[in-house]
Amino acid sequence: MIESSRVNEILYGGDYNPEQWPEETWEKDMELLKQAHINVLTLNVFSWGLLQPEENRYDFSMLDRIMDMVRAHGFKVFLATSTGAHPAWMVKKYPDVIRVDGTGNRRKFGRRHVMCPNSPNYRKFSVALAGELAKRYADYDNIVAWHVNNEYNGACYCEYCERGFREWLKKRYGTLDKVNEAWNANFWSHTFHAWDEIVAPNFLSEMHQRWDDSRTTFQGIALDYARFMSDSLQTCFNLEKAAIKAYTPEIPVSTNLMGLQKTIDMYKWAKSMDFIAWDSYPSYTEEPAEVAMRHEIMRGLQHGRAFALVEQTPGVNNWEEYCRMKRPGAVRLLSYQAMAHGSDTVMFFQMKRSPGACEKFHGAVIDHSARADTRVFRDIASLGAELQDKLGSRTLGGRTKAEIAILFDWENWWAVEYSAGLTAHMDYIADVLNYYRALFQEHYSVDIVGVEEDFSNYKLVIAPLLYMTKDGFDEKLRAYVREGGTFVTTFFSGYVDESDRVISGGYPGKWQDIMGLWVEESDGLPPEERNSFLYHGKEYSAGFICDLLRPEGAEPLAVYQQDFYAGVPVIARNRFGKGTAWHIGTRSDESFYRELLTEICGELGILPILRNVPDGVEVTLRENENGSFLFLLNHRTEETSFPLQCGGTELLSEKNYHAGELLSLPGRGVAILRQG
Amino acid sequence: MIESSRVNEILYGGDYNPEQWPEETWEKDMELLKQAHINVLTLNVFSWGLLQPEENRYDFSMLDRIMDMVRAHGFKVFLATSTGAHPAWMVKKYPDVIRVDGTGNRRKFGRRHVMCPNSPNYRKFSVALAGELAKRYADYDNIVAWHVNNEYNGACYCEYCERGFREWLKKRYGTLDKVNEAWNANFWSHTFHAWDEIVAPNFLSEMHQRWDDSRTTFQGIALDYARFMSDSLQTCFNLEKAAIKAYTPEIPVSTNLMGLQKTIDMYKWAKSMDFIAWDSYPSYTEEPAEVAMRHEIMRGLQHGRAFALVEQTPGVNNWEEYCRMKRPGAVRLLSYQAMAHGSDTVMFFQMKRSPGACEKFHGAVIDHSARADTRVFRDIASLGAELQDKLGSRTLGGRTKAEIAILFDWENWWAVEYSAGLTAHMDYIADVLNYYRALFQEHYSVDIVGVEEDFSNYKLVIAPLLYMTKDGFDEKLRAYVREGGTFVTTFFSGYVDESDRVISGGYPGKWQDIMGLWVEESDGLPPEERNSFLYHGKEYSAGFICDLLRPEGAEPLAVYQQDFYAGVPVIARNRFGKGTAWHIGTRSDESFYRELLTEICGELGILPILRNVPDGVEVTLRENENGSFLFLLNHRTEETSFPLQCGGTELLSEKNYHAGELLSLPGRGVAILRQG
Amino acid sequence: MIESSRVNEILYGGDYNPEQWPEETWEKDMELLKQAHINVLTLNVFSWGLLQPEENRYDFSMLDRIMDMVRAHGFKVFLATSTGAHPAWMVKKYPDVIRVDGTGNRRKFGRRHVMCPNSPNYRKFSVALAGELAKRYADYDNIVAWHVNNEYNGACYCEYCERGFREWLKKRYGTLDKVNEAWNANFWSHTFHAWDEIVAPNFLSEMHQRWDDSRTTFQGIALDYARFMSDSLQTCFNLEKAAIKAYTPEIPVSTNLMGLQKTIDMYKWAKSMDFIAWDSYPSYTEEPAEVAMRHEIMRGLQHGRAFALVEQTPGVNNWEEYCRMKRPGAVRLLSYQAMAHGSDTVMFFQMKRSPGACEKFHGAVIDHSARADTRVFRDIASLGAELQDKLGSRTLGGRTKAEIAILFDWENWWAVEYSAGLTAHMDYIADVLNYYRALFQEHYSVDIVGVEEDFSNYKLVIAPLLYMTKDGFDEKLRAYVREGGTFVTTFFSGYVDESDRVISGGYPGKWQDIMGLWVEESDGLPPEERNSFLYHGKEYSAGFICDLLRPEGAEPLAVYQQDFYAGVPVIARNRFGKGTAWHIGTRSDESFYRELLTEICGELGILPILRNVPDGVEVTLRENENGSFLFLLNHRTEETSFPLQCGGTELLSEKNYHAGELLSLPGRGVAILRQG
Repeated sequence: MIESSRVNEILYGGDYNPEQWPEETWEKDMELLKQAHINVLTLNVFSWGLLQPEENRYDFSMLDRIMDMVRAHGFKVFLATSTGAHPAWMVKKYPDVIRVDGTGNRRKFGRRHVMCPNSPNYRKFSVALAGELAKRYADYDNIVAWHVNNEYNGACYCEYCERGFREWLKKRYGTLDKVNEAWNANFWSHTFHAWDEIVAPNFLSEMHQRWDDSRTTFQGIALDYARFMSDSLQTCFNLEKAAIKAYTPEIPVSTNLMGLQKTIDMYKWAKSMDFIAWDSYPSYTEEPAEVAMRHEIMRGLQHGRAFALVEQTPGVNNWEEYCRMKRPGAVRLLSYQAMAHGSDTVMFFQMKRSPGACEKFHGAVIDHSARADTRVFRDIASLGAELQDKLGSRTLGGRTKAEIAILFDWENWWAVEYSAGLTAHMDYIADVLNYYRALFQEHYSVDIVGVEEDFSNYKLVIAPLLYMTKDGFDEKLRAYVREGGTFVTTFFSGYVDESDRVISGGYPGKWQDIMGLWVEESDGLPPEERNSFLYHGKEYSAGFICDLLRPEGAEPLAVYQQDFYAGVPVIARNRFGKGTAWHIGTRSDESFYRELLTEICGELGILPILRNVPDGVEVTLRENENGSFLFLLNHRTEETSFPLQCGGTELLSEKNYHAGELLSLPGRGVAILRQG
Repeated sequence: MIESSRVNEILYGGDYNPEQWPEETWEKDMELLKQAHINVLTLNVFSWGLLQPEENRYDFSMLDRIMDMVRAHGFKVFLATSTGAHPAWMVKKYPDVIRVDGTGNRRKFGRRHVMCPNSPNYRKFSVALAGELAKRYADYDNIVAWHVNNEYNGACYCEYCERGFREWLKKRYGTLDKVNEAWNANFWSHTFHAWDEIVAPNFLSEMHQRWDDSRTTFQGIALDYARFMSDSLQTCFNLEKAAIKAYTPEIPVSTNLMGLQKTIDMYKWAKSMDFIAWDSYPSYTEEPAEVAMRHEIMRGLQHGRAFALVEQTPGVNNWEEYCRMKRPGAVRLLSYQAMAHGSDTVMFFQMKRSPGACEKFHGAVIDHSARADTRVFRDIASLGAELQDKLGSRTLGGRTKAEIAILFDWENWWAVEYSAGLTAHMDYIADVLNYYRALFQEHYSVDIVGVEEDFSNYKLVIAPLLYMTKDGFDEKLRAYVREGGTFVTTFFSGYVDESDRVISGGYPGKWQDIMGLWVEESDGLPPEERNSFLYHGKEYSAGFICDLLRPEGAEPLAVYQQDFYAGVPVIARNRFGKGTAWHIGTRSDESFYRELLTEICGELGILPILRNVPDGVEVTLRENENGSFLFLLNHRTEETSFPLQCGGTELLSEKNYHAGELLSLPGRGVAILRQG
Repeated sequence: MIESSRVNEILYGGDYNPEQWPEETWEKDMELLKQAHINVLTLNVFSWGLLQPEENRYDFSMLDRIMDMVRAHGFKVFLATSTGAHPAWMVKKYPDVIRVDGTGNRRKFGRRHVMCPNSPNYRKFSVALAGELAKRYADYDNIVAWHVNNEYNGACYCEYCERGFREWLKKRYGTLDKVNEAWNANFWSHTFHAWDEIVAPNFLSEMHQRWDDSRTTFQGIALDYARFMSDSLQTCFNLEKAAIKAYTPEIPVSTNLMGLQKTIDMYKWAKSMDFIAWDSYPSYTEEPAEVAMRHEIMRGLQHGRAFALVEQTPGVNNWEEYCRMKRPGAVRLLSYQAMAHGSDTVMFFQMKRSPGACEKFHGAVIDHSARADTRVFRDIASLGAELQDKLGSRTLGGRTKAEIAILFDWENWWAVEYSAGLTAHMDYIADVLNYYRALFQEHYSVDIVGVEEDFSNYKLVIAPLLYMTKDGFDEKLRAYVREGGTFVTTFFSGYVDESDRVISGGYPGKWQDIMGLWVEESDGLPPEERNSFLYHGKEYSAGFICDLLRPEGAEPLAVYQQDFYAGVPVIARNRFGKGTAWHIGTRSDESFYRELLTEICGELGILPILRNVPDGVEVTLRENENGSFLFLLNHRTEETSFPLQCGGTELLSEKNYHAGELLSLPGRGVAILRQG
């Protein structure tokens, strides 16, 4: 939630870059945007080259005109700091501001998001600009938030980063002996005797490409470099934020995250951000549960606080392999889906298609035709009107209560996929999705949270592929289960510490007592090979990884049916203290996950949000001081209807329903039922 | 046509590299080549290292012996300047003569065609050598043409090129403001404030690889760099040409183009070349229409003038993934196909297989066995005899009259495929071929010409995927249609100016009045998705791109049948002035293009060259002062026969046909009917 | 065979890296390893960073403790020199010790096996360390062999290598003229006029990537560089060996080869190695014949002498795409297969899984659980006991007699696959395997030997794809066949000399008289195209390459059935002197090779080792002074039984069989029959 007295409605708008157009076109834009019920504009995302034409000179004249114009037309503003792409002169004069890539080549001027986060010059210039902007526009009362930089991501391998890495390691480990131990450096003669022997682990050092992925010789080094890079970028954010806060302490500061962007540890970043903002660009190949899962993760970053959807396409994603148009109703459905999961904004990239360069064919409210009678414009305008008229401020700040948590962890993501072994195709997201999808399909409320979250709020905690078990995690987990919690985990979980050192004594390391078993071996099956098991009399497939479980107290619930390990347990449940721990030792079918989680929820008395909702309809519930809002989203293209379990007022149609009454949702239709 | 008094027959021969063999083998080569009816040899293509053993010394002794020998044996000569590969000493001493690749690495000595076109040293040395050669061999009356360098192509990204690029931009745009405007440089902070901030757009700058292709952040920069590189290479050609002309002003100067080589703007180059020469290397996977289309494009480069086929394989292409042998009759058929489309020569790479290095297994007249009783040798000798005996000089200089033009444009090719959007798989050649193939199959004469061509000679102008509309093009098009011309265009046409800036006001920009419609949206479909439409009662598929047309005056002729845009026009025809403009808003089946173009030609009174010719038989007509020559080429492997619409003498069999008489063509057979 | 008085049993053990674990865990390792019947440990493979913490200081304290401990526990030792991975300080201080890769980038510290073999500093430091180790541990009477460096392979392209290459060329060719001639340097202006014009042929020079392989412009240069690199690495081996021999002249010195590692010319290396040692890591996708073929090649390196299998996995290969577990019995079967083909050792990587880095999930005797009740541990222990109890020293040094030789040659391998032409997918190993597999399936003894081997020991010599014919080879072959030998060869054989220069006069060059034919053309078919032929009335497929044979004395035995070359011979046999030469002009089916070779062996009176053995059962025979040992290996998962042709004692079951008695082998079962 954007904690600002300036925000009292759903923010509806997005990126507007008038500097790419002749000024005489701007006024028409203003009219069209108002016609589309736009109320907020993200400005100044990539104008550093204009704002600072040379090292010792700023020129805010055009931005002044833009700021004045949009204020005059009543638009609120997300003001960006423009530091996501350098001016060309800066790269020429100070080549250190730009990255050295993984093969050791320093980039030249070009593209964007290529700043070296440890470059002293980059830091100096970016922080100065952020401060200048904050000072200059501090009095614009329509600024609702600061948008620092843009879509932080990636890594640099320059000498500044190398030196920074050594400093970071000193802080983390204290001594070189600790570093050597953490990395198991005696392997392959990697014992370091001086700090400056440590180099950035790029493709000239520890990394290589294989099976279309980048792989590492030393997981410990790669992991620490990933942490260091995420931290370095976060330092850049923090420095700009501090410069801004000096002038506008009340205006919230954020940046636009990129959903499941792998290189940024967002749980750590969330602590620096005044609110969570993110860009959602589902491909046409994705299912609704994948989009929903990313929203849940974003919602979980600040423990369930409402967030801001700051970018999505109003038309096509022009950078996809095939730029398939969003079908009618799709943008509206995606917008309500964001709100259903915790967004208080509906924002787009972009307000207007640019005349040139690589985003000119990306969807926009205002097309190159600048016509108001296009399908896209009409749909955006109609959605804007609906949000304004039918919802107003009612849903703002709404939160979702969940008794189920799925654990998600960025460092674990890195570790799982850097792993050399079991399979080269470890896919953390895929296995998290397997569990999330089942809960989504069965209409349960679920939080996706970090491993530091307090588990005591949850009846059920699910940890797919939680390979890395951080310091203290096992004690927390032990206490949680002992006190009655239910824990579900999978193959390749509990193996290593924070440095990717295997915990001795067998898998899953320190969790063995909790799980009541150990994993003797795991079979990494190629895609064409499958095993199977019976669960409650039904046969399900097993594959990808097949754990061979050795229960020591746990009750085997299913055994393999094929191969030499037919009869060996694949699923086992352990009663531990007052709680229960489940080990699911393989990857199975969609139907299995639904069956399993429905059973567990049933046992724990966890109820779905709504019963008897047909497949393809998504249900979420957000609550605030204005009431409980039940979001019903029909992801199918055909109409569907079903009897509502509860009564209430449907806000978009302004129709009242009594419990048991039939609700009809058109294809891609949405209903928001204010309950009670 | 090679305008030379020295050429009075079909030139038959090709590349001969005796310097790769002991001199004692040369005389036998002479005998074998004469036995094969070879009359022309391309010499000295890659001998710089021999000719200039050190910086300040030339050694022409071996070339002298070769030149004397071939003259003594009565061979004509294409004399090459040898500048397509450097001597090793030059690369060592002057590293700037060689290219810096797209990832910023300077090459070392090796391979060929890797000269930096903006290297002062390369220019100095290459021009000097060309001049020396011309001076030395000026009096050899058997030289029929100069072959400058070899297969120009590619790009360099060194500092000389970077500086040259800035100078080129100054000349093109005058001011940096104009550059910034053309490139839409305010996008992503690319505003340039000094010329030397501009860098070569390589993979360290604006380019990246994706979907197996190189893509760009800034289309405007990439386009200008492509232009600059083509121009830079052309300057090298022009400089060598001038040095040669100083000594042998009457001997035509050319270079061997590579057909659809993307990096060279051949319409521009054609203005520098005394005649068009090119290398045709169809793969076994290609259909006859693809080969024919490339010939048409080569013929169009100088407005229909006869050209020279200077390379094709007499056996296998050794650099293909699978070196499938040319089937019996295939080389003869390809040779006549070249002549059917305007070639006055039939030339091969190579006369003799070399003993070592990477082309030793490429097809040759003289195999490593040096035997005259091989299939390849016999077939080459037999074709040589046939050309000499049956055709002589009769077809030389023949031209083709066409009432249909297909527009082709190199800069548009670059722009279409640099485009970020609609689809990552834009394929200009594929869509040009869709239209060309239909006309080929229906036996219409067609010119493929540049956008600067005079349209008034044509009843029908077809512009597939003409995305870029250059300055003045719309006025020319408007006048053409208004005066009665018929214009056919497709999706993704008329969008941008020469800098890839979208023309405001909706697609297709300035053509909207001519087309009587605008394109509201375009659906970029993945290959597995298809739509369809009915045209004259038959159903055809629609896919790849589906334009949603908004007619404003145009008459919709077909509408989509599926998806939410069922009923929306996909094909529309506009009556504009005395003429007609057709928009074909999707990619369809082969059968559709045949149906459509037959219909349009029928309406316009454009007749096929010949009627009732079976599928698989290609027909062209060349005319010169000796008469009209109807080429009939059977691309099928089975015999086919059909009644000839017209009478005449078949030159190869020396048989007379009366109109209506049955002509029988064996599999891969050829007939050349001199009409009347 | 490890010629050492210290070896009197099958060595059973492998790599043990205690330095990666806290010392307090070592004693338990000792107990577990003894429990597993391990008797030999490979130590110190990657400890340089520990042994030499700074330039002028060694620290052997930990290695001393390890050496003392393992000696105290009665383990024998393979002592490694640790030079396969540098200390980090060395790379920092002397960057020349590390490689420049194929794209011209110098590596940084990281990974392993990346030493520049021509770096003076690398040579100095590595040789010094080897000497220090030999001096220090000379008196440890449990050292059975030295393991120099590790898995030598790969190439460097630095300036030291470039200079070294020129020196190597001077030694090989004497003059630049000879180099130019060997390389056919007049091609593409590659004529060299000074030695220092020659550069390392990397991706900036002659190499490029295509069809997922690296290809070259100049085969001659690439070949010589491959030879030079193999020689350079061998020099490193030789230098370390000499330093060791100064202190421990009696202890055999070897290194672990990697089976079919392409970059090392193992026939040349074998002359430097005291015994052959190698690492066998079959993938789950491989068939038994592939594994067997690699063993045969290793056995052939020293003319049939027993070798040492020094690495295989006891569990999974963690670096595979899918880490499929070895099925029960599979490790035992692979171990006996190694012995069946000449190994006197059964050794594993690794004794214990490491806690961190990229091999921690590779199979090990001691798992992270450190439990003795795992499947892997039990199986290893049981195999160890079996070897000790049932075999003891009885099979040591056993040799195999064969009347059939398949020729294999590293330089030919390079040349065949560098070839530009016939097909881009030349695959030497695949065609050698086609012939080997048939003999394997039909239970013939076969040697795989280098082209320098004496042929007079063999009734049949098979040379698949022997493209390169070295100096003197044709004379040797001619004499062999003339004197009654039988020679079988294939397409693409006999084409070039040692510099990849085609031998003039037609293929197969100097063998034409022996073969009684020449090859006019070869059709390189794509995989989807096939031809066929009849042989003894059965139809077999022809594809990949189809030679068009022109017999001149040879008798055609089969002709093509399809395409324009239907009727042209594909198989021909020539009687030459007292012998016979067969040309097999295409790649055919498995059944063809079995049919053909059974026929030829039948004619030559070559008997299979055993008759009436079912498919899937492998048979080999090793003989030593203790008797004849018949190995019977059931590669199927089901039990099979068959009557034994001969009687004897089965050593593992200690059961006696009389001739004709039924032998029953369980799935993956093994029998070793001591005959007579």
